[in-house]
Amino acid sequence: MQAVWLEHQTLSLRALPLPSPDGEALIRICLTGICGTDLELARGYYPFTGIPGHEFVGKVVEAPQVEWIGQRVVGEINAVCGVCEQCRAGRPTHCEQRTVLGIIGRNGTHAEYTRLPLANLHRVPDSIPDEAAVFVEPLAAALEIQQQVQIHPTDRVLLIGAGRLGQLIAQTLALTGCDLRVVARHPRQKDLLHRRGIRLIAEDEILPRRWDVVVEATGSPSGFDLARRALRPRGTLVLKSTYRGEMTLAWSPFVVDEITIIGSRCGPFEPALRLLEQKEVDPTPLLEKRLPLSQALEAYQAAQQPGTLKIVLEV
Amino acid sequence: MQAVWLEHQTLSLRALPLPSPDGEALIRICLTGICGTDLELARGYYPFTGIPGHEFVGKVVEAPQVEWIGQRVVGEINAVCGVCEQCRAGRPTHCEQRTVLGIIGRNGTHAEYTRLPLANLHRVPDSIPDEAAVFVEPLAAALEIQQQVQIHPTDRVLLIGAGRLGQLIAQTLALTGCDLRVVARHPRQKDLLHRRGIRLIAEDEILPRRWDVVVEATGSPSGFDLARRALRPRGTLVLKSTYRGEMTLAWSPFVVDEITIIGSRCGPFEPALRLLEQKEVDPTPLLEKRLPLSQALEAYQAAQQPGTLKIVLEV
Repeated sequence: MQAVWLEHQTLSLRALPLPSPDGEALIRICLTGICGTDLELARGYYPFTGIPGHEFVGKVVEAPQVEWIGQRVVGEINAVCGVCEQCRAGRPTHCEQRTVLGIIGRNGTHAEYTRLPLANLHRVPDSIPDEAAVFVEPLAAALEIQQQVQIHPTDRVLLIGAGRLGQLIAQTLALTGCDLRVVARHPRQKDLLHRRGIRLIAEDEILPRRWDVVVEATGSPSGFDLARRALRPRGTLVLKSTYRGEMTLAWSPFVVDEITIIGSRCGPFEPALRLLEQKEVDPTPLLEKRLPLSQALEAYQAAQQPGTLKIVLEV
Repeated sequence: MQAVWLEHQTLSLRALPLPSPDGEALIRICLTGICGTDLELARGYYPFTGIPGHEFVGKVVEAPQVEWIGQRVVGEINAVCGVCEQCRAGRPTHCEQRTVLGIIGRNGTHAEYTRLPLANLHRVPDSIPDEAAVFVEPLAAALEIQQQVQIHPTDRVLLIGAGRLGQLIAQTLALTGCDLRVVARHPRQKDLLHRRGIRLIAEDEILPRRWDVVVEATGSPSGFDLARRALRPRGTLVLKSTYRGEMTLAWSPFVVDEITIIGSRCGPFEPALRLLEQKEVDPTPLLEKRLPLSQALEAYQAAQQPGTLKIVLEV
């Protein structure tokens, strides 16, 4: 099969053998997205050798249970052991022995085929087109915020960052009825929010010490600093991006103001599918460009341009 | 009256005029403790000029409501406006116009007399001796942890630091039934915990990534680092100490492990008084030395020695 291969921070297009299912499902990829994590893997931010990619919609072509064959599916990215302390405590996404699709110890989806355990798969309702289903994984990650933090309808919520993930976070936060404002940098990002009636705010209009919840989705020290200043005492800072390297900051204000900081990663797929089915969320305007798998390297290049929204590979 | 005076990082003993109550209660101090914050103020960590001290038990000698006169009281340290957004939202300890007894804009308790609004005072039940009542403020600060974080009886809880505040935190956490272990440095700290049946743990015995809740009460980067390594995915790190200056750390692991960090400061007085009345907590063994107010400077010296427990001034 044709696949993207990452090794020593170099991407290439290769012909590789079909994955052997070994008790898992073999899935033919239809669409697969390029995400910020893929770009960071390619830059060597995390060590990974293999096929990258973890956002996908595809069709099951082989499975240990025949009823799955032919099903259109999306898949959770953490393949877990089921027996470690984290799994048994109901935190499978933190499984100590986990492999992660296209990220840790498991080939990903920027290929014609991939494999995943059946337990990871979710059937996609017919009413959800591939162009929306390919966003289920990042949409689930956006919903992880509400899974972790109670967003009150009366809360003032500030979202910093309106890129690929930020747009989905904005759409899901808006559903809570909270008083949401978004800090966006690029005109296209602003336009997409504007079209959904989501209110923007300029950095210099952000009242300091007034926001109940701040979601930081830029992964930059300047975003973190802005978030810190905006939060009210006893407010909650949600970190939705990983931060490269180290960050230096004064900790006393966090203690004096009794701030809560919470890291947020993978989220629940079923609510993401429900919101797509109910059309409460529409990720499809984020789809900036579709390129065939054979042009994957160009697609990675395009995804790296600042302000670029979602680039998707067609397989 | 006789009082400790702090100015330009220098402590002195002075004869000062009696505070004018101006609609507040005038309180004659009986016992007043020296706390880590007082030592930090004296070192110039925060800017403060005036009478330091905020842990006390005393008797009301003048008050706008006569029923308070003669009452033995302890007092909350934040004097608040009642009308700002924080006050109206039920977060008076974060009042935007607050003064703080012996810390921000208000003379404290290392003196013969102090003043506080009646709203700050709590009557001390007769069954609680002065030697216990003088610990109500730090005991309330310890209880702020349970006010912020649900400690499950099944939780593994690690407390790092067993000094003045750490000992009170250990006693209150032990009441939850959780599986508590304490990292203590000094033999006296260890002995006090041991006598209450609270279990110690050596640093090299701490299993990494296994603790549901870690309370950091040392205020040191090494304590923070130990806490970080001990926490399980989705665990909660309670910061119970302020940190001098800045700290540099890698943030990605907090996001990947979905850690919650929560700053914790002043706590509720009534539950602290209840626990003292029920004798569920006994702070009196922490009382290391009582010195008269006239020897306050020697008392500050003694309090600065590593491993020293509570030094109290008798007025």
